[in-house]
Amino acid sequence: MSAATELARTDGSHEITARLARFFDERTVQAAAYGSAFERLWRLAGEAATGGKLVRPLLLLDVYDALASPRPGSGIADRETALDVAAAVELLHFSFLLHDDVIDQDTVRRGRPNLIGALMDQARESGSASDALAGTVHWARTGAILMGDLLLAACHREIARADVPRTRRVELLDLLDRTVSESVAGELIDVGLSHGLVPPRLATVLGMTTHKTATYTFELPLRAGAILAGADGATQDVLGAVGRHLGLGFQLQDDLLSTFGDPARHGKGRYSDLREGKQTALVAMARTTTSWPGIEPRLGRPGLTDRDAEWLAGELEACGARTAVEGLVRRELTAAVDLVDDPANGLTGSLRAVLHELTRTLRGRSA
Amino acid sequence: MSAATELARTDGSHEITARLARFFDERTVQAAAYGSAFERLWRLAGEAATGGKLVRPLLLLDVYDALASPRPGSGIADRETALDVAAAVELLHFSFLLHDDVIDQDTVRRGRPNLIGALMDQARESGSASDALAGTVHWARTGAILMGDLLLAACHREIARADVPRTRRVELLDLLDRTVSESVAGELIDVGLSHGLVPPRLATVLGMTTHKTATYTFELPLRAGAILAGADGATQDVLGAVGRHLGLGFQLQDDLLSTFGDPARHGKGRYSDLREGKQTALVAMARTTTSWPGIEPRLGRPGLTDRDAEWLAGELEACGARTAVEGLVRRELTAAVDLVDDPANGLTGSLRAVLHELTRTLRGRSA
Repeated sequence: MSAATELARTDGSHEITARLARFFDERTVQAAAYGSAFERLWRLAGEAATGGKLVRPLLLLDVYDALASPRPGSGIADRETALDVAAAVELLHFSFLLHDDVIDQDTVRRGRPNLIGALMDQARESGSASDALAGTVHWARTGAILMGDLLLAACHREIARADVPRTRRVELLDLLDRTVSESVAGELIDVGLSHGLVPPRLATVLGMTTHKTATYTFELPLRAGAILAGADGATQDVLGAVGRHLGLGFQLQDDLLSTFGDPARHGKGRYSDLREGKQTALVAMARTTTSWPGIEPRLGRPGLTDRDAEWLAGELEACGARTAVEGLVRRELTAAVDLVDDPANGLTGSLRAVLHELTRTLRGRSA
Repeated sequence: MSAATELARTDGSHEITARLARFFDERTVQAAAYGSAFERLWRLAGEAATGGKLVRPLLLLDVYDALASPRPGSGIADRETALDVAAAVELLHFSFLLHDDVIDQDTVRRGRPNLIGALMDQARESGSASDALAGTVHWARTGAILMGDLLLAACHREIARADVPRTRRVELLDLLDRTVSESVAGELIDVGLSHGLVPPRLATVLGMTTHKTATYTFELPLRAGAILAGADGATQDVLGAVGRHLGLGFQLQDDLLSTFGDPARHGKGRYSDLREGKQTALVAMARTTTSWPGIEPRLGRPGLTDRDAEWLAGELEACGARTAVEGLVRRELTAAVDLVDDPANGLTGSLRAVLHELTRTLRGRSA
């Protein structure tokens, strides 16, 4: 990455953080008109939403900067608009996280209380819930469902108001529409897999993984950056395909790290995937091996001891599932790079540099 | 209402029904690419969403027709666009109902299974849930949360894509933004009241009622119809105020009907509000009377017998709460008519006719 891109990236991070802070501050002030409970919901949401790595908005900006800078002109959104849309993408991310946490009944994220946990703490401290724990939990989940709705609406509003020509706005709205649909479909299949309502075929698990995470984490920012920079449909499509490969690789890495990585670095509970019995590609691979009858009865047991979990992780390695998923990760990252470098795809040098840098970062991931 | 308006209204109903059917059909077909579970979710959502009275979209169209017909011209959306926005308003309604049902843990609406109930039935019939009831319930609630997200997104998309001048689109988007915010705030306060986390003052209950229902059921369609017809800001504001009065009156009527009306006609379970201990204006009024100590311990008891519930309803009448709320309803409907008829507000004759007809319908409500 050139020094200039590096600089733009740093600036972008400040500017997106400032936009998000302003958004939550303004909404918190407006919310006061509807009572202190609504004001507190917005304040706690703002606190829970800050401190993220801004992966998605920064990716959008990198692509925008790479494509727009050398040829500014008509049909290209200005950088302020790109920053607005980048911040909106982070709101979408936060909306998805909230509904994900409601569905998974999680109260912690990255080692601190998520919005549900914060709302429970606050209701407990106020000590006024008439029906103690059940009321506190219900109140907190309600808050997270409703804040997810508010942020989903806000994301749409920001993108719908973007100051770009009509054709570009329609492209952005269609992209957002497909993104929300696919992410929701992925989440639904994930829950269906966890209850045995969807058969756990490897292809289904990989599709779920792509839709639930890759689409909105990689494809959305890459495509949106290209649209804002005025890129043609062919370039958008190449970036979409690159995003799906990188996103699937990224999520498969997450699954590997959760089972074999250092929990102090990846921020999830040690072996939490194994205790939840999450239907990952690792598990789908193991299912096709002779080790499966030993693995199955332990997987998804909430009271699984660390020793048993360690044994399970060992089995997932010994049966070849780890190696197979590591192979899938390499395959996805290589497929992305091949698309980036294919001269037929005609990506510019600066865009290719951004995408190579991104792939390098993913290859070296340990957290 | 003139014969012409009556005809337009009838046509509108067919056209909105057709638009909604087409929307759900198209989405169901597209969903198949993500597996049969996602396809089924869309199909069941389409079935659950049909057969409604289309109160909100028809109200929008009535206002649009009353304002746009006599003076077509620039800045006025064509009727096809008005129909698109009207259908989008119904999607918003359905999205709110779904998340409401998740929050209230309801599985029935108007005497038939809602989407959650339908998803539970379907999962049970497939007989494949690995963890029986808990899994079935979780799966069904997940489906309803996610479908609510999809419909909230779809509503935004339709309105963002409306073929109207930029200033009109921004007005529509701002209106949608305020509507979602207020409705969510109302829902949050409602749940807070039910757990004793928000103090049950009459003003709070009336504010909650206005925000949760009046805003999106009356103010949104009235204002949106005016925006699409190219009406000025002053007319929009008068319609907004009329909508809030009518909406509050409408919801207070609902509360009265639920306790004193004929359950065969209003479609809710007999005395369900009393069994849930819903914090309605009736209850807030009763709280200020000497009958309260007798009412309080019975209110919100899930196992309340019909006899006890009948006694409670009798007490709510004897203590004067019923009369007081009936007075509030009259006050709200009168306030609406006064605004409609105030020459200073300059509403046209055809618009006033639409609003008078609406108020007459509300006055005569028994279901």
